[in-house]
Amino acid sequence: MKRIAIDMDEVVADAIGRFAEWYKRDYGIEFTAKQLNTTPFENLIDPTHNGFIKAAVYHDDFFKDLAVIPGCKEVIKDLYQHYELFFTTAAMEFPNSLLPKLAWLGEHFPYILWTNIVFCGDKSIINADYLIDDNVKHFKRFIGQGILFTASHNHDVQWDVRVNNWQQIRELLL
Amino acid sequence: MKRIAIDMDEVVADAIGRFAEWYKRDYGIEFTAKQLNTTPFENLIDPTHNGFIKAAVYHDDFFKDLAVIPGCKEVIKDLYQHYELFFTTAAMEFPNSLLPKLAWLGEHFPYILWTNIVFCGDKSIINADYLIDDNVKHFKRFIGQGILFTASHNHDVQWDVRVNNWQQIRELLL
Repeated sequence: MKRIAIDMDEVVADAIGRFAEWYKRDYGIEFTAKQLNTTPFENLIDPTHNGFIKAAVYHDDFFKDLAVIPGCKEVIKDLYQHYELFFTTAAMEFPNSLLPKLAWLGEHFPYILWTNIVFCGDKSIINADYLIDDNVKHFKRFIGQGILFTASHNHDVQWDVRVNNWQQIRELLL
Repeated sequence: MKRIAIDMDEVVADAIGRFAEWYKRDYGIEFTAKQLNTTPFENLIDPTHNGFIKAAVYHDDFFKDLAVIPGCKEVIKDLYQHYELFFTTAAMEFPNSLLPKLAWLGEHFPYILWTNIVFCGDKSIINADYLIDDNVKHFKRFIGQGILFTASHNHDVQWDVRVNNWQQIRELLL
């Protein structure tokens, strides 16, 4: 059985949605879905608010109850019948994310056991056939095939295997 | 540069020492180093105290400030000159261990960056040339060479590459 490693933020968990939600709360400014999907969040916000992103991402509540990226629940459930699945997230950069991420996975993917959850940093440590990730840097030394998941920050990145949504992952892998 | 994955509990961090410390605190019974090194802890304690181990390991303080296994600091520092090092621990079983383990590594091995720390479950997900671990189950599907680190619970386990202490790791890998 082949193995798929699946990233979390911007692949299954909507961290950009949390930035947008908190930015609106703090500054009263709202962005459209199109803006959020096509422009890196740091380029959307007022330059004088450049401390906002760092303050948000290190806040204890940032990773709690993030929205689920559309389609991932259905497709991952189907992938699970044909592949060995692991969630692999570079969580070590944000110690405040560890427990919320574990709780989030338990809530939304209870059939993926603790044995198949990986919190790491450099993903070249991951032994899998496929890695679905929004950050191409993790593919450089990855042992398998990287699948770039389109996110606002990677539209201009060149990579040979790219998907724009979970439906395209279904078409690619099932 | 070859890569070594290093387990934590019973390899670099003395979890058995914590069990012994708390058992003495709770029941006034002390074990010798020889007992702790040769007999699995669950076989040392009074059978009527069989809830002790589970209660201890899920306690928030269990993984805090564990003693360092003798020799590992010196040998790991030298290995670091010749290998790419990752700490890989099956921490997901114990969510209470995540933050204490990260803090412990930062204190004792500050030169091993967050990029090279992995909290996981099934270690077949680890892509490394060597895995130093006290639990042979992690070697079964491991892509590289497992190196069994002797612990009280694995004296009777058969494995082709075994080390009894960090000096023997130095001799094997340097």
